Amino acid sequence: MTYRAPVQQISFILRNIVDFGQLAGTELFAEATEDTVDAILNEAGKVATDSYAPVNRGGDLQPARLENGTLRSSPGYADAFRSFADGGWVGLSADPEYGGMGLPLSLNGAVNEMIAGGCLALQLNSLLTQGQIEALEHHASDDLKALYLPRLTSGEWSGTMNLTEPGAGSDVGALTTRAEDKGDGTFSVTGQKIFITWGDSDFNSNVCHLVLARLPDGGPGTRGISLFLVPKLIPDAEGNPGVANSLRVVSLEHKLGIHGSPTCVMSFEGATGWLVGERHKGMAAMFTMMNNARLGVALQGVAVAEAALQQATAYATERNQMGPIIRHADVRRMLATARAEIYAARAICMACGVALDMAKATGSAEWAARGAFLTPIAKAHGTDVGCRVADAAVQVHGGMGYIEETGIAQYLRDVRITPIYEGTNGIQAMDLVGRKLSDGGAAAAAILDEVMDATKAAQAGMPELANPVWQASEGLREATAELIEAGADNRNAAAVPFLSAFARVLGAHFHLRAALAGGEDHKTLARIYITRILPRYLSDLVEARAGVADLDKLSDDALAGNMNG
Amino acid sequence: MTYRAPVQQISFILRNIVDFGQLAGTELFAEATEDTVDAILNEAGKVATDSYAPVNRGGDLQPARLENGTLRSSPGYADAFRSFADGGWVGLSADPEYGGMGLPLSLNGAVNEMIAGGCLALQLNSLLTQGQIEALEHHASDDLKALYLPRLTSGEWSGTMNLTEPGAGSDVGALTTRAEDKGDGTFSVTGQKIFITWGDSDFNSNVCHLVLARLPDGGPGTRGISLFLVPKLIPDAEGNPGVANSLRVVSLEHKLGIHGSPTCVMSFEGATGWLVGERHKGMAAMFTMMNNARLGVALQGVAVAEAALQQATAYATERNQMGPIIRHADVRRMLATARAEIYAARAICMACGVALDMAKATGSAEWAARGAFLTPIAKAHGTDVGCRVADAAVQVHGGMGYIEETGIAQYLRDVRITPIYEGTNGIQAMDLVGRKLSDGGAAAAAILDEVMDATKAAQAGMPELANPVWQASEGLREATAELIEAGADNRNAAAVPFLSAFARVLGAHFHLRAALAGGEDHKTLARIYITRILPRYLSDLVEARAGVADLDKLSDDALAGNMNG
Repeated sequence: MTYRAPVQQISFILRNIVDFGQLAGTELFAEATEDTVDAILNEAGKVATDSYAPVNRGGDLQPARLENGTLRSSPGYADAFRSFADGGWVGLSADPEYGGMGLPLSLNGAVNEMIAGGCLALQLNSLLTQGQIEALEHHASDDLKALYLPRLTSGEWSGTMNLTEPGAGSDVGALTTRAEDKGDGTFSVTGQKIFITWGDSDFNSNVCHLVLARLPDGGPGTRGISLFLVPKLIPDAEGNPGVANSLRVVSLEHKLGIHGSPTCVMSFEGATGWLVGERHKGMAAMFTMMNNARLGVALQGVAVAEAALQQATAYATERNQMGPIIRHADVRRMLATARAEIYAARAICMACGVALDMAKATGSAEWAARGAFLTPIAKAHGTDVGCRVADAAVQVHGGMGYIEETGIAQYLRDVRITPIYEGTNGIQAMDLVGRKLSDGGAAAAAILDEVMDATKAAQAGMPELANPVWQASEGLREATAELIEAGADNRNAAAVPFLSAFARVLGAHFHLRAALAGGEDHKTLARIYITRILPRYLSDLVEARAGVADLDKLSDDALAGNMNG
Repeated sequence: MTYRAPVQQISFILRNIVDFGQLAGTELFAEATEDTVDAILNEAGKVATDSYAPVNRGGDLQPARLENGTLRSSPGYADAFRSFADGGWVGLSADPEYGGMGLPLSLNGAVNEMIAGGCLALQLNSLLTQGQIEALEHHASDDLKALYLPRLTSGEWSGTMNLTEPGAGSDVGALTTRAEDKGDGTFSVTGQKIFITWGDSDFNSNVCHLVLARLPDGGPGTRGISLFLVPKLIPDAEGNPGVANSLRVVSLEHKLGIHGSPTCVMSFEGATGWLVGERHKGMAAMFTMMNNARLGVALQGVAVAEAALQQATAYATERNQMGPIIRHADVRRMLATARAEIYAARAICMACGVALDMAKATGSAEWAARGAFLTPIAKAHGTDVGCRVADAAVQVHGGMGYIEETGIAQYLRDVRITPIYEGTNGIQAMDLVGRKLSDGGAAAAAILDEVMDATKAAQAGMPELANPVWQASEGLREATAELIEAGADNRNAAAVPFLSAFARVLGAHFHLRAALAGGEDHKTLARIYITRILPRYLSDLVEARAGVADLDKLSDDALAGNMNG
């Protein structure tokens, strides 16, 4: 319960593992110098450690609630958020023209990781706002930008994403919320949305909803959907929050975790909205927001893993059972493999962020493809690691881990949402083996080339580490080629284990880089990863090759427990 | 939320996979005929489905609570328990001389699995009582047996196990509760105990505590500990609950799950107790209870996995996202691998139970060694599968899985205690590679011989399934031999992955038997297990061979996130 933002670890990865330094060589990110980055990490780290972490437990115990339809946030959240917003952190990557700092997404990811490590439930507020800022920057009219972006960037207002409906989860095209053109430049939006994170807030003076809805001439499916900006309070002529819009929070969900984050059922009842982007092209605009959010969620997994491992390590240092249990071989195995997993997952996320930044800074299609390829891996793997590490952290606590007072179970409950939202990890994996291999494997091949070049270069100095990584990347290359040739169902059945294998190889690659660049602990941690975690890629690839036939052959009755014969 | 006891599945495993039938050939279990067993499974299954399952959700929402020091159990628990006790199920395996049915432990395990699948929190009440019955049968005086056993066996009274103290978890020898001989055949017991499951009950007319405490002449460590029976109400001359003893429930823990099961802090304040077994030999007596409980906990893991998978399968059948999601390859992969895992874990548990039964019936040292060897595997693997499957079941539900109202998250929370209590899974694994291999590997070799003989016999008919199992058991045999030669720290570092590998090979072995004995679904499920799950033994064994050196070399600072260099 004494989370300390991992400034040093993040800084090392940015400098030595993912070539963050190249960003300062671009015109767009010329200001992202080492000194600036270190200053930002240190300052944001203080906010995470001193402001966010202290309110984390209280938010679990005293969840956000509705009082006569008005949201009351958890104790201390308002002040903690203010310390974050006042630092300008909401707008770290936002357009300087509207008050943002214009710094790299990868740096924003680093800051977000620390803030989420402090308090995941509260960090969601600004994460959603950042996604909305990006969507408006790309798709909104200049008038909307001028009105909304400065207030979102300052954290004065917050943003939400209204996508899911009771009958339409991952199948967004099935949505029924409708919009009508009022002929005065505004639209009337009517429908119900569920799972709306921070659908209301008592420390943001306005809450701006991005809502997917269908215009009367919108066709069926995802192609007929448009995107609307629907504020809680309609801005007046001066841009201040004015009259209440026709929308309300119907109820809050009672969830497994992130109790401090209000998950709202929203009702739009002829609410006034403004079109964002083109008619019927709302999905494309929404995807801008979702892509940003996917890397953000990936880092939430890493963040909670870090916080949980810190607590488990502290407990294992203090807890004596015939000596401190941190000296027990099996406890040490749990802690060390968790540390190695976090290290790898963080590096994958940061590499993804740097690729997205380089794409933005250079316009390079290769960088864009690399970022797009790494995004689903970062999301699924980062959140899986989040769950695995939080689970191990509970186990290290023994019986105390099961007692809510200890606080470690909260991490397990909180992080469990991350493999689900922003596209389940299964959907991430299908995106990877579908869209992201639809270039014939070019993006995958470029990454594997990089891995193999790096391992070859390391083979002279540390063959015992480099050789297994080289071998694994060879195996992965073959599996990738096979997958590209496979039919859709076999590919989808292979998706999750294939993504897992790819992540393990990438993790080993980054650990190898760390072993070359860092001291003894980096080398030892790399060995732990490469000898204990990397080898699991083998069984991942075996499962990826197993295909869909046996899954289809098993009867539905058997799945339910009634075996035929 | 519509759990149906898996009578058919359990019956198939008992008949065809674990040779339950041989028990009826022994004098002790001559009554355990196929007809009797099927009748018992059917009747107990009804209690699980019709009485226990309906109270499961309410217990989560309205936990047990203390009202002026008096325990109030969750709604409906009293009636559900009565339907179980009235069927005589508490005493299924208890001594007929004291009112028990004298039936096999493995059958009791099958009944317990179904009851736990219905409501884990309530099932704990009778599970602990059954453990106490066994401990008293083995170690109590005839007077104590005559007084207590009939009332425990009928479920009128309940039993608890008082082992853990605030400063002594897995290190039982550090306990400080003390006992003094009052010279009248009774003892005075004073101390505090924590984590006491069902430390009080409002539907058992007496609660009997088995308490570990140290007599004045008891030496330090575990050798100086004695065991006492300390009833909540001291029986009067007729054996009815009489005056209140000097003990009380101080508080209840607020836990991640099993909210309906009161986890008590108990205070014994000069409470009157009776010695069970010999002075200073309390640990041995307590271990009788713990061994019984370990298989019981293993089956709790299987039970919750079954319940969670049933709910996930029902959800996937109904939920449409471009067709029912049960037809989506990745969802089907999750459901099918979960089904295969449950099948294997259940077979391992039942095989363990049959071995313990055969040991009891025949006095054979080989059967006893087999049962002892399988117990930690069953416990750790069964509960790991419980957690994995409950986790997958949440994931299948997507966003709905995170909403408590759906009910699936309760399974995840409930089952998370099972890898912790009755000896953490790490401790189970160390027991396996330590005590259970201290025979030079004889018990392990006997089991591996059986696996290899069975695979050889199957090679002609289904080589594609038999060959990988044969190969894996070869690899496991080598790894076992190496482990026996290893030092204690290397062995302990290897313990968890070694246990996992052994479980996977055993699971594949039992699936192979099922494929030979059963119809198409059994064969398909065996293929799914052998191609998708068995291969993970390889990376398990790689990790088992990695040794402790790198774990020790990594600095404690690095574990905490502060890398040197």
